[in-house]
Amino acid sequence: MDGKSSSNTAGKPIRCRAAIARKPREPLVIEEVIVAAPKPREVRIKIICTSLCHSDINYWKLEVDSCLRSKLVFLLKLINDCCFLLKRPPAIFPRILGHEAIGVVESIGEGVHEVVEGDTVIPMFLPDCGECADCLSKKSNLCSKYPFHCTPWVGRDETSRFTDINGETLYHFLHVSSFTEYTVVEMARVIKVDPAIPANRACLLSCGVSTGAAWKAAKVEIGTTVAIFGLGAIGLAVAEGARLCGAKRIIGVDVNQDKFEIGKKFGVTDFVNPRNIGDKTVSQVIIEMTDGGADYCFECVGLTSLVHEAYAASRKGWGKTVMLGVDQPESMLTLSSFGLLEGGKSLTGSLFGGLKPKSDIPVLIKRYMDNELQLDLFVTHEVEFEDINKAFDLLLEGKSLRCVIWMKK
Amino acid sequence: MDGKSSSNTAGKPIRCRAAIARKPREPLVIEEVIVAAPKPREVRIKIICTSLCHSDINYWKLEVDSCLRSKLVFLLKLINDCCFLLKRPPAIFPRILGHEAIGVVESIGEGVHEVVEGDTVIPMFLPDCGECADCLSKKSNLCSKYPFHCTPWVGRDETSRFTDINGETLYHFLHVSSFTEYTVVEMARVIKVDPAIPANRACLLSCGVSTGAAWKAAKVEIGTTVAIFGLGAIGLAVAEGARLCGAKRIIGVDVNQDKFEIGKKFGVTDFVNPRNIGDKTVSQVIIEMTDGGADYCFECVGLTSLVHEAYAASRKGWGKTVMLGVDQPESMLTLSSFGLLEGGKSLTGSLFGGLKPKSDIPVLIKRYMDNELQLDLFVTHEVEFEDINKAFDLLLEGKSLRCVIWMKK
Repeated sequence: MDGKSSSNTAGKPIRCRAAIARKPREPLVIEEVIVAAPKPREVRIKIICTSLCHSDINYWKLEVDSCLRSKLVFLLKLINDCCFLLKRPPAIFPRILGHEAIGVVESIGEGVHEVVEGDTVIPMFLPDCGECADCLSKKSNLCSKYPFHCTPWVGRDETSRFTDINGETLYHFLHVSSFTEYTVVEMARVIKVDPAIPANRACLLSCGVSTGAAWKAAKVEIGTTVAIFGLGAIGLAVAEGARLCGAKRIIGVDVNQDKFEIGKKFGVTDFVNPRNIGDKTVSQVIIEMTDGGADYCFECVGLTSLVHEAYAASRKGWGKTVMLGVDQPESMLTLSSFGLLEGGKSLTGSLFGGLKPKSDIPVLIKRYMDNELQLDLFVTHEVEFEDINKAFDLLLEGKSLRCVIWMKK
Repeated sequence: MDGKSSSNTAGKPIRCRAAIARKPREPLVIEEVIVAAPKPREVRIKIICTSLCHSDINYWKLEVDSCLRSKLVFLLKLINDCCFLLKRPPAIFPRILGHEAIGVVESIGEGVHEVVEGDTVIPMFLPDCGECADCLSKKSNLCSKYPFHCTPWVGRDETSRFTDINGETLYHFLHVSSFTEYTVVEMARVIKVDPAIPANRACLLSCGVSTGAAWKAAKVEIGTTVAIFGLGAIGLAVAEGARLCGAKRIIGVDVNQDKFEIGKKFGVTDFVNPRNIGDKTVSQVIIEMTDGGADYCFECVGLTSLVHEAYAASRKGWGKTVMLGVDQPESMLTLSSFGLLEGGKSLTGSLFGGLKPKSDIPVLIKRYMDNELQLDLFVTHEVEFEDINKAFDLLLEGKSLRCVIWMKK
């Protein structure tokens, strides 16, 4: 089976349906697309279901810089470099968004030994090549062989596997692009999982919920106090992780008052609504509540101003602040260096909560199957693929935590 | 003995010699001074010897703000608040500097049970009350009962124990003021030590050398790479600590080329002189040398710009940067929040290297007595008290690491 596949479609392009983001902020359009065969060390996956994450929405909202667009006409291959030079994420359309998903291997490219046709797999935005110094180390989840970049390509060869029926290139998103019946992903980003886990739970583990797995990133200890800035899926997953780690007090911070009731189900014990604290800052309120500050603070929104508040709210002497939300690349964090010295606090950030995809996702799946990890509560809505725009509306209106989108008709 | 002392001078003022900093940047003047008896929970100490640290020089150089001075005429008690409002350290004269020392208890104030007359003690700028949540925790060295402030007083009661022979108040420095034959220190800042350790080694442990005890602050692991920015006493002590922890490569960074030869004695294996690297930055050079960055970076100068370089030079995925040097309070550290997120690095700062004075100094003493910790190499010069200004010259000229000043005639 090395590099070959027995499926009827193996080695050939597949024509299928995909939801295409053609313009920023406009509803996705379901169209027929052509998905090329996987190249060496790539896997073509038939998506079972996918869920919608805020990052999909953030990139869907991005306006293309006109200057950048004019450059792109001639320098399409250089988009990644251009974007990094301009210090902004690559806004590029038409694109197939989506990066939280589960599917089945339809066919494999040459040199793929780790999975075979029919395997249940989770495609991941974060690579885990298993060979480089980072992947071999227990301390890092930032693969050096496939560095994390927001490119619009399938991967390192900087090409797309998608075209529309007119032959126009459709761009990838976070190396996954799951809003399609079939996608192509590099093997370094494919995790083989136990098919026993329900698909509409497993798909959550490839981004938001795992990112909140506080037990790994911050080593939350029994009896401690945790403050969580933003109670979306990441923040609630932090609460869930902190609860599993034995935190005695979990303070949720959100401007949406409804989040307190939701948060309680995940272990949130106290709630701070920044709109209801008068002239005080959130950090002042948390310092008062905890008699000195929280042992761990997690920023789960992606706002640098909240990282400042989180750092300020963390306990002098040992407080840890972890940034998990993604802000714009140009955002700068400014701290007093004397405060850093005399505070004895630490500050860190992590992609995907510091988890190593190939070793940690199976652990999370086991914890779910053992009824320890509450994935069910995250799935507030489920829709058919045709209704994918409804999933966008629900998340934009703050009504859903995770809306699962089923690909089958 | 509770609250009492059997010495002839107990309970009475002592007239002795002290080196007074009367004006910024002017040589210290040895004068007769009056040292009041210790108040409750205070200890009067006869200094055996003291060593000169850069912080003494930094405060000796401070110019008094004329606006601040005019306020002080009326609001002397409020100096600490004023300084913090103005975000600058308290420049105030006449003052008795010095904060690295060892001595013998001459008498004790009421309520002191931990030491008696004749005990050998190290007076410490950093308190360790042994009762508050921070002192009781293994994770913090920032006593909450006696918060660390750069006040000009003996301690919390905001008074001085020093006057000159004309009755003028002389200010304390870092709650220690060791450039005098006798000083008064709060019991929370007094460490009883084994008198077997030579005084001219023990005195080093109350600031710089201990601050560099990397084994506690950063948990340096065997086989790792450590980069040290600044090879003064703190930086060399970091090298010494990293060597004891088993670091395989210790990169020293200093503009003084002579420091490489000195550094080798403390375990420095590689050297970077920022003046000899052309257009490259120090972080670029270190990233190239280490194929990705150092596992641990220590800033030991007190320059925010070096903290930036240290953070940049630390290894993606797991690099730890520790700030140990003291910059001006108004200095701000600016980091990309996206970089923080996608770098997976951590940043922290610590006073006194994160050590808990009362439990960790005896450990360092034992390591010295067991010939593990090389304190001897730090003492490059020794002078009599009369020649204290020579100690300043040597440190200012970069010729000394530590110059011990002996009090006895």
